[in-house]
Amino acid sequence: MAADKSDQQYEHTLEESVPLRENARHRRYTSERGALPKDEDEKGRGVKRPSESSNPQQIKRDQRWAACCQRLFLSWIGAEWIFLILLGIFLALLSFFMDIFIFLFTDAHRFLYHASDSNVMLQYLSWVVFPLLLMLFAAGFTQLFAPQAAGSGIPEIKTILRGVMLKEYLTFKTLMTKVISLVCVLGSELPVGKEGPFVHFGAICAAVVCKFMSFFSDIYKNEARNLEMLTAGCAVGIGCCFAAPLGGVLFSVEVTSMFFVVRNYWRGMMSATFGILIFRLLVVWKKEEETIMALFPTTFRLDHPFDLQELPVFIAMGIVCGFGGALFVYLNGQITRFVKKQKAMNNFLISNCFVYSGLVSVFISTLTFPPGFGQFMAGQLTQKDSLISFFDNRTWSRDGIVEDFDQDDHLFAWKHPQANVFVVLSVFVFMKFWMSALSITLPIPCGSFVPVFVIGAAFGRLVGEGMATLFPDGIETDEVYHPVVPGAYAVVAAAALTAGITHTISTAVIMIELTGQIRYGLPILAAVIISNIIAQNLQPSIYDSIIRIKKLPYLPEMGWGHQDKYNIHVEDFMVRDVQYISLKSTYKDLLKILRMTKLKKLPLVKSAESMILLGSVERAQLCSLIKQRVQELRERVEGRYEVHFQRSTDESSAASADAVSPKSALRRSSDTEETTDTPTKSSSILKNLLFGDAQAVMIEDDGDVDGERILREIKEWEEQQLDEQVNFNNCKIDPAPFQLVERTSLHKTHTMFSVLSLNHAYVTSIGRLIGVVSLREMRKAIEGSLTDEGLKLRPVLISFQDYGTGANNFITEKTKVQKLLDPDVNLTQQPNTSDQ
Amino acid sequence: MAADKSDQQYEHTLEESVPLRENARHRRYTSERGALPKDEDEKGRGVKRPSESSNPQQIKRDQRWAACCQRLFLSWIGAEWIFLILLGIFLALLSFFMDIFIFLFTDAHRFLYHASDSNVMLQYLSWVVFPLLLMLFAAGFTQLFAPQAAGSGIPEIKTILRGVMLKEYLTFKTLMTKVISLVCVLGSELPVGKEGPFVHFGAICAAVVCKFMSFFSDIYKNEARNLEMLTAGCAVGIGCCFAAPLGGVLFSVEVTSMFFVVRNYWRGMMSATFGILIFRLLVVWKKEEETIMALFPTTFRLDHPFDLQELPVFIAMGIVCGFGGALFVYLNGQITRFVKKQKAMNNFLISNCFVYSGLVSVFISTLTFPPGFGQFMAGQLTQKDSLISFFDNRTWSRDGIVEDFDQDDHLFAWKHPQANVFVVLSVFVFMKFWMSALSITLPIPCGSFVPVFVIGAAFGRLVGEGMATLFPDGIETDEVYHPVVPGAYAVVAAAALTAGITHTISTAVIMIELTGQIRYGLPILAAVIISNIIAQNLQPSIYDSIIRIKKLPYLPEMGWGHQDKYNIHVEDFMVRDVQYISLKSTYKDLLKILRMTKLKKLPLVKSAESMILLGSVERAQLCSLIKQRVQELRERVEGRYEVHFQRSTDESSAASADAVSPKSALRRSSDTEETTDTPTKSSSILKNLLFGDAQAVMIEDDGDVDGERILREIKEWEEQQLDEQVNFNNCKIDPAPFQLVERTSLHKTHTMFSVLSLNHAYVTSIGRLIGVVSLREMRKAIEGSLTDEGLKLRPVLISFQDYGTGANNFITEKTKVQKLLDPDVNLTQQPNTSDQ
Repeated sequence: MAADKSDQQYEHTLEESVPLRENARHRRYTSERGALPKDEDEKGRGVKRPSESSNPQQIKRDQRWAACCQRLFLSWIGAEWIFLILLGIFLALLSFFMDIFIFLFTDAHRFLYHASDSNVMLQYLSWVVFPLLLMLFAAGFTQLFAPQAAGSGIPEIKTILRGVMLKEYLTFKTLMTKVISLVCVLGSELPVGKEGPFVHFGAICAAVVCKFMSFFSDIYKNEARNLEMLTAGCAVGIGCCFAAPLGGVLFSVEVTSMFFVVRNYWRGMMSATFGILIFRLLVVWKKEEETIMALFPTTFRLDHPFDLQELPVFIAMGIVCGFGGALFVYLNGQITRFVKKQKAMNNFLISNCFVYSGLVSVFISTLTFPPGFGQFMAGQLTQKDSLISFFDNRTWSRDGIVEDFDQDDHLFAWKHPQANVFVVLSVFVFMKFWMSALSITLPIPCGSFVPVFVIGAAFGRLVGEGMATLFPDGIETDEVYHPVVPGAYAVVAAAALTAGITHTISTAVIMIELTGQIRYGLPILAAVIISNIIAQNLQPSIYDSIIRIKKLPYLPEMGWGHQDKYNIHVEDFMVRDVQYISLKSTYKDLLKILRMTKLKKLPLVKSAESMILLGSVERAQLCSLIKQRVQELRERVEGRYEVHFQRSTDESSAASADAVSPKSALRRSSDTEETTDTPTKSSSILKNLLFGDAQAVMIEDDGDVDGERILREIKEWEEQQLDEQVNFNNCKIDPAPFQLVERTSLHKTHTMFSVLSLNHAYVTSIGRLIGVVSLREMRKAIEGSLTDEGLKLRPVLISFQDYGTGANNFITEKTKVQKLLDPDVNLTQQPNTSDQ
Repeated sequence: MAADKSDQQYEHTLEESVPLRENARHRRYTSERGALPKDEDEKGRGVKRPSESSNPQQIKRDQRWAACCQRLFLSWIGAEWIFLILLGIFLALLSFFMDIFIFLFTDAHRFLYHASDSNVMLQYLSWVVFPLLLMLFAAGFTQLFAPQAAGSGIPEIKTILRGVMLKEYLTFKTLMTKVISLVCVLGSELPVGKEGPFVHFGAICAAVVCKFMSFFSDIYKNEARNLEMLTAGCAVGIGCCFAAPLGGVLFSVEVTSMFFVVRNYWRGMMSATFGILIFRLLVVWKKEEETIMALFPTTFRLDHPFDLQELPVFIAMGIVCGFGGALFVYLNGQITRFVKKQKAMNNFLISNCFVYSGLVSVFISTLTFPPGFGQFMAGQLTQKDSLISFFDNRTWSRDGIVEDFDQDDHLFAWKHPQANVFVVLSVFVFMKFWMSALSITLPIPCGSFVPVFVIGAAFGRLVGEGMATLFPDGIETDEVYHPVVPGAYAVVAAAALTAGITHTISTAVIMIELTGQIRYGLPILAAVIISNIIAQNLQPSIYDSIIRIKKLPYLPEMGWGHQDKYNIHVEDFMVRDVQYISLKSTYKDLLKILRMTKLKKLPLVKSAESMILLGSVERAQLCSLIKQRVQELRERVEGRYEVHFQRSTDESSAASADAVSPKSALRRSSDTEETTDTPTKSSSILKNLLFGDAQAVMIEDDGDVDGERILREIKEWEEQQLDEQVNFNNCKIDPAPFQLVERTSLHKTHTMFSVLSLNHAYVTSIGRLIGVVSLREMRKAIEGSLTDEGLKLRPVLISFQDYGTGANNFITEKTKVQKLLDPDVNLTQQPNTSDQ
């Protein structure tokens, strides 16, 4: 039931968001035409029209000149490339400065650790307390300022790009909170990554820049276009994170979209290339590097990168990584589920979620403490240093190599007096695996890409070293021996394991761009594809898993190779019992339907007999229709019972005088909240009457017999009035809601829903409305009953919803109207009713 | 006018193709339900239902066992990965064996040339005649067997993926013709490429494999799915051509689609990777290479690939290449236009198009003749050898290097006793530029990617050598000198110029995969993007240019950064004067409308007053409605005038007896063609009456006064009957045609048309039909008046249309019906009326 309820909540969110893409232009148009007189409308459209005045010619010429300049400036600022370049610069700077701060933190950590090497206890404290403090700060800061900044952000961006606006996720506040927290988290060396948050950053930057640009150019007010810009933002984000323009764009596409406009790919590519150019130039400018290079450049041999006989080993690694990826997602899901299941603990954690983060931080730091257990898993290495060491060109298992490792070198961490390289690598893989799966469940900004990448690289190195030991002279082809390159195995496995978790192929491209070598392109691709096939058959991707756990309103993908979906048709899963209004509906019918259903849009048919679909009407519109009617009635009533009401109004003002009683104050305040635009008491009585809440009337007017009689009279008269047919003349009707046919296949419906970001579609048969399909039915049809498997919401999301009242755009006129009509609907059920 | 007419032709094609994607399932369903009884329907659905018989138990068990096996086999064969792997293998083998044959031809050419070096004249002959013969064969072969195999194929595939089925383009015959012709063309060393044809091959292979698989599994009968498979096919095709899986997939996406399903990217990637693995393994198996490597591996230095100070040069090259790309497209268009304008020549060429090909071949061979002018442009090098030499690691302009070039080396071609490297390179660039632009206008299978790639590489080499001369010691950073690598300039410019012509970014990826080095990734990307921006602003891509010239029914792209499209709305360009039928239409109205319009689908409204849109009806359906009515009437009439008609039928059989008169034979044959299913003469009289062709009646029945009276009577009675309301009971109505609102923006309409492959959409306002938008209006709205600029069709396409009668699926029942109704519509105007 809980599952269903939360599903219902999103239905609302969904319905709300339709105008954003579907009919935004139309709506704005009608509201402009409807509400404003023609002139005002023209003025409202902005600066493009040269203003004309009755001043002398000189001023006129000046004005014309100014208008011309303005137009030029606007066309320039409206140009897409300006936006894309701004976006690139913004994210490049962000990435660059974040890297600096993260490095500062990890460096300080190392410094403290080495400074206190006189005493193991002191050293332990400095090793554990530093990250603990950072973590506590990050978790507390996130919780305090923007709980929605926690997590990777990719699932939410995926949902937003699907057309469901989760407003709070794209604010500047969220950006700043997430940036600061992420720097702390990464500085604390928890095994989490930054790719997910960077996708989020990219999207926020795009949204913020769009908002900023909208001051200058009207084009940026088009929501559909802005959503497209978000895609570009994601691409730049991920690109700047890995200095991988191609991989970044492809990854962001694969991860966030199901359909993909080639135009967006263009935008992303341009912005990402520019961003990365800036990002890498900054590095060169800081004299860290001589020229623009890859982030983790490898120097494997070019002439004979791998032997064909190694190909089966690469593919086998792909298979293992596929299973590993699925296991990781499963483990992560199980941990989340376990934490949620502990009721008592759960309550404690929701209120003190940073305690949980702190505990995990201490636990992990203790295990990685280099003089302790950390010595068996190269605990002192940061993720970056580990990666550099895994991609090393040497073969560690060869005799004497490990002994040569220098104290100052990263590789020194892999040298252990008792255990050999294989043991250390195995322990590393095992420990990091569950540590990462645990860490990314914390309510802090964290990505899962990089930690998995590191685990994969370690696993590959392990296999590579094994191969090098098996074939010490290398692999023979035509009597020529080619030595095994363990670093290449690390590269292949890193890509394959990440692919297994993210279900993307572009990890191969990211890998190629990260290492700056494509000679292993084919083995990487093959392993990535194999890993993908296995992982996709076992588990959803980590992002889809989080979407399921968080129950975000996202339409699941069709899955790869599910041919049976072509044989399910709309008639098999549509809802036949449609709630509708007809041209002949009375106000009473309207009220009844509004009470019965919570849909945000209702179909309008010609008559109950013909059922010819004419369009759809928003709930808010219907509410305002009734409100108008009430207003009309009230005016008439007031004319009729003027004297009586005059008296009762006096009474009510008297009641407001004795405001000492807290109960009456409470009642009054709730009154004013509900009826800000109906100041006289009469209206509140009327309202109560209209909605049949007789008890309230009795409380208000107890003892007043005269009033009671009048009210009864009004009620009778009113009921009569409400039997009148609704006047739809002033109602905004969406004249072309999306329609399907009974025999449209699930596959095609899915395509339409995805491409057009639909939330519902009406099923018609020769003009007659016969059913409706909403996202929920779609989801059920695709996944069976996903909601049954579902879990309660994560604290983060719960807080996002409950704290909704804190956001000023949650309470809008519409909700008020609705509350007016449906007293049982409370605000928390409609977190995103605004679509401005 | 000509332009409009051809546009009209495609309108038909378009309208025809709707069912393929839009409503294929629905249509099939209704036709099954409508035409077949329930049982037959079930049987028609195939093998999945175990057959039950009254035989003994043993047989029953056997049958069940067999059915189970069959099901297993079917699910296995239906699995997507089988299909993808088959596709990969097929194309890998194709690519591999084509390469072998092309090499054989070029090798034979070289052998002949060197064998005849005793006499320059003989040498010239052997240099010119060999390619001439190949070209004549290729052109003749193409013209004879499959004229649609000519050209690159990408424009047509783009159109097909847009939803317009150009049937002949995806047959096995076309594949074989194109393969054989392409081998000859490439063997003749004309500067054309193979990437376009390979996209075409990929699509054909996918279509053929789909067709093959459809014998085993019903899933392959789903056209929407098959279209998705075509996309995968294209990706594999281009991938196998360049051994570039990533680049291939991206290129095929960029070139063929505007919208792109991430699912397809997955499919393409898997199939391409597998195909390329096979393709490269075959090369290793042939002992040409030791292991899997890139096609043109480069070995530039890894430590300091380029200096930051070189970046502006790379970007400048991007700018020049952008202009160059636009110039190439312009030049190619102008040549096509020029050739078409010469009326007399045009007629000659259409009939003898291989003569034109031969002339061009001789002209180009003469210019490249190595002892002649060819010595100034490295004439003896094939495209592959040129590329290898451009990507060479040495700096040619350095003193003494060119002198060291060995006779057997490819580089020897660049050594000239009088002219230096710069002159030879410049001449090469200039000559190849126009030669390539000319060659790809020939009616032979040819791609434009590779020749442009070679030109770009040459240009880059030229710039690189220039830089090396300017900075002989290399470029200084921090007092370290890094020598210039001219080969890298060639790589960057090749990618940039190709990008300028194809308007794709994936050329960067292809380049990286071709050379097997990504160290120059960022300069390549930057140059490619700059080149794209410039070229896109100047000219359409080469494929769009061909689409325009050929007037294929393709919706142009919105262009990059055309924000004004967001402010154009449907109401601004919709057709308000809609041809419609209403439920109250009479047969007469129907006939009138069918005569007036040639639309393939007509909207059905409730009544002319209400204009409520109920659905749309196909023209063919309406025709058959009238036909049915005529049949009914005829039966009634026959009952009434049985005796008279008996006599006139006798007369007609007597007429058929004296078949010696050619005129009567002609008349009879035309009769049978028109009325195959109406054997009695009465029907032909009736028909003539019905369609008001009184003259024909007079000719048929001259002298027969009695018949005349009867006919007059029938006519009167008939006219009465035709005033009856149409009975739509047996008519298949599409209940949900796509609807738009007046205020839908052009941008959104474009998206919908592209994604859903629409051909038209009705504009409704609260259920009322107020306008219609078809592809044509869309195109006009986007491009202004494209059709005015247009040209006559290319001979290839003309021949494709005129020879249409040779294809058995051109004359279908529907055209017949239509001909029946509209005697003035001739077949050539509807080349693709079939949609089976």
